[in-house]
Amino acid sequence: MTLNQDLFDDIARAIREGRLESGDRLPSVRQACRQRGVSPATVFLAYGRLESSGLIESRPRSGFYVRAARRGTRALPVTAATRGEATTVAISELAFELLGTVQAGDVTALGSAFPSAALFPFDALARCGARAMRRLRPQQQIGGALIAGDPGLREALRSRYAHQGVPIAEDEIVITDGGLEALNLCLQAVTQPGDVVAVESPTFYAALQALERLHLKAVEVSTDPVTGVDLDSLAALLDREPRLRACWFMTTFQNPIGALMPTARKRELVQLLARHRVPLIEDDVYAELYDGAGGHRPPPAKAFDRDANVLHCSSFSKCLAPGYRVGWAAAGRHAGAVRRLKMMSTLATSLPPQLAIAEYLANGGYDRHLRGLREALSRQRQRALRLVERHFPAGTRVTRPQGGYFLWVELPQGVDALALHRAALTRHRISTAPGVLFSADRRFVHQLRLNVSAAADDSGRFDEAFRVLGRLAAERVG
Amino acid sequence: MTLNQDLFDDIARAIREGRLESGDRLPSVRQACRQRGVSPATVFLAYGRLESSGLIESRPRSGFYVRAARRGTRALPVTAATRGEATTVAISELAFELLGTVQAGDVTALGSAFPSAALFPFDALARCGARAMRRLRPQQQIGGALIAGDPGLREALRSRYAHQGVPIAEDEIVITDGGLEALNLCLQAVTQPGDVVAVESPTFYAALQALERLHLKAVEVSTDPVTGVDLDSLAALLDREPRLRACWFMTTFQNPIGALMPTARKRELVQLLARHRVPLIEDDVYAELYDGAGGHRPPPAKAFDRDANVLHCSSFSKCLAPGYRVGWAAAGRHAGAVRRLKMMSTLATSLPPQLAIAEYLANGGYDRHLRGLREALSRQRQRALRLVERHFPAGTRVTRPQGGYFLWVELPQGVDALALHRAALTRHRISTAPGVLFSADRRFVHQLRLNVSAAADDSGRFDEAFRVLGRLAAERVG
Repeated sequence: MTLNQDLFDDIARAIREGRLESGDRLPSVRQACRQRGVSPATVFLAYGRLESSGLIESRPRSGFYVRAARRGTRALPVTAATRGEATTVAISELAFELLGTVQAGDVTALGSAFPSAALFPFDALARCGARAMRRLRPQQQIGGALIAGDPGLREALRSRYAHQGVPIAEDEIVITDGGLEALNLCLQAVTQPGDVVAVESPTFYAALQALERLHLKAVEVSTDPVTGVDLDSLAALLDREPRLRACWFMTTFQNPIGALMPTARKRELVQLLARHRVPLIEDDVYAELYDGAGGHRPPPAKAFDRDANVLHCSSFSKCLAPGYRVGWAAAGRHAGAVRRLKMMSTLATSLPPQLAIAEYLANGGYDRHLRGLREALSRQRQRALRLVERHFPAGTRVTRPQGGYFLWVELPQGVDALALHRAALTRHRISTAPGVLFSADRRFVHQLRLNVSAAADDSGRFDEAFRVLGRLAAERVG
Repeated sequence: MTLNQDLFDDIARAIREGRLESGDRLPSVRQACRQRGVSPATVFLAYGRLESSGLIESRPRSGFYVRAARRGTRALPVTAATRGEATTVAISELAFELLGTVQAGDVTALGSAFPSAALFPFDALARCGARAMRRLRPQQQIGGALIAGDPGLREALRSRYAHQGVPIAEDEIVITDGGLEALNLCLQAVTQPGDVVAVESPTFYAALQALERLHLKAVEVSTDPVTGVDLDSLAALLDREPRLRACWFMTTFQNPIGALMPTARKRELVQLLARHRVPLIEDDVYAELYDGAGGHRPPPAKAFDRDANVLHCSSFSKCLAPGYRVGWAAAGRHAGAVRRLKMMSTLATSLPPQLAIAEYLANGGYDRHLRGLREALSRQRQRALRLVERHFPAGTRVTRPQGGYFLWVELPQGVDALALHRAALTRHRISTAPGVLFSADRRFVHQLRLNVSAAADDSGRFDEAFRVLGRLAAERVG
């Protein structure tokens, strides 16, 4: 897995940095095997994934070539320079306004943070829930033991971690009210008001809101659209900023840009932070949504955590059961503090949804569901990439993530994404997530995050929405 | 309702203050009607409730008499003097230790904060949940609208408020992950770290934990075991303490002492706080658990809230569905801020438990369940009072709450309640909630809160637990 990922990363970076250009021929499979000392299977896997990401194409009896950009949209968005200064956060006003509108019933919800509800096995979950609730003994409903969550669900999670080669201690997992509560509790466990927390740039607005709520300051770290957080910038920051008390990073399919930090880099990140004794809060809610075709689950940074310094947070909201609000933290040596904060803030997580999910994990066919979901999302990412290439103006850049369900579109200079968002919503009932949501200092004024999973609801309407957005963008190029 | 409550309060206070003594004859019904200008029905209702509270007794063909104290346990606990100074809170360490132990499987859980699970209709709820989940449309599972909660459940709550004569605005209700989250969000909506919040004395330890978590300071206000917060002390505090930003009070069946603030006093409280522009966070989770025999639901202080200055918080955890963790806030003019904080902390409350409860409210026979629950708890309070009178040493004082499921027992001077708690737990597997949990400055060293609902599980074991506690207390009198 690591070998094909490394090859994928190297070629993707070479394309992005212009060392490989449109039409260039890639090394043959035999050459690549020899150059890197890997097996043909590894090379085929990497080339296959590069092809499904739209970066290269195979030509019959000829080989693999860097794909020609259509209408100039091939390029990846540039890595943003950050100011590198701690900023007081006040993002929630804007986020609240925007989030209130992105998902009204009649809106094509390209601005939504959630995958389309059409992708989830709600009926099977409801049957599992009914079965589990009938078996429930009243005594289970109440009790101090429930602060950490249902023991059966916690054990099922530990066993999934173990299966991925990530050892988790018995008391390490705390079940939470969605991934957001897990992240909030972890953040509060390792900080005090006024402390500084490092986030990616761009970063998920919920992270910014969490900092705002806890009176923390954000410092943004440059983040590459393919390989994630820049470790040199981070190392410099760690040396420079004594008030830095935590990092909150999404190491796999980062929201919004979809970056997948290479495995070796995740290990390096964990080692760097352990040396500085700065805890890593790892937001890992998209890891199950890797590329459907031949991909493997990328390991979390937590896999390399020898110092119990990584607080790994995830949930079922993006991969199984959005409205159930069941998440968890595996919080390393901070697990006790997280459990205590859980007791103080929401006491315990609702039991029926935990039991429904535990039953589904045991008997519902979770891995089969995940396979179907991954394949659907891969197809939808490809569909959306083609739509961007076809309809958006020249100079548009777009990410090609290997998982998740977001594209990050960088519109040509001069196009105000927030204005475009408002026009699309008001006149065409299409929502987007404008880039200003994703930074404490309101950069990313030309960017949009687009949710590709809406294709599952109504593909005709989905295609039309991309056509409209492209036209609105083109009108604004000037 | 108000008239019989007033009469009840006056006589209860006279007994407590010694103006009416054991064996004194109360005015006849006819006299009482004439003196107070009320109907015989009103007097009978008040006397009936005084009798069921154990304060008076009727003697056939003779009248009503103040009840003779058996073995000196008649007296109510004294109102504690408070220091009246803002205190930094650090209660959670002790609370966490104690709460971890009170509800282990083999423990007679007199220290539990929850009513016995045997009192709840879990099967009917599970059936309602299964029905509601089958009807669920996928689109409902996801969406910004869900931040405030399921619209059907919110509307059902509004209609229950309206039925009690409490008008609630359409957008005022936010569904939360249990009552504790409601209280936490309300507290954060009206304070900043370092602010001072007034609480009762003794107060519910979760309030102290919430203050601790939000870096707030507590100031305790004297609280009478019958009539609740002392308004003169509160008025003086409001004049004296400019950093006071909120009051967190339980106006009905206060935890731990069971005080029911008289209706007129609730109105006065609301007016006093409105004049000072200090919001009232009203923790009202026990209001449905009023005296089973002829009682009425006491109105909340929120009923008198003309300035949208009361943030009314409640839940289904104490009266219907403990493990479901569904609560709410009706937060007056702070509702928008509460909604925003909800989005930032847990995003939305799990949908299946909300739908199960909404379905149960519509078709499950909620009011019938409540009638049975009230009668059971009334009987259990009486049973526990008789057990305290029979088994506890002379000089023990005990509350006689008109609702809820707690007794607050004040042991004779010299008996260390925490040591007694530890001995009972270690040697006899009986848990209690020692008084030190209920104050920021660890007063109440001679007090215990006892949960009477455990009688529903096993009344023989329950009786035995009181016998053992009484013996342990007697051994310590010295």
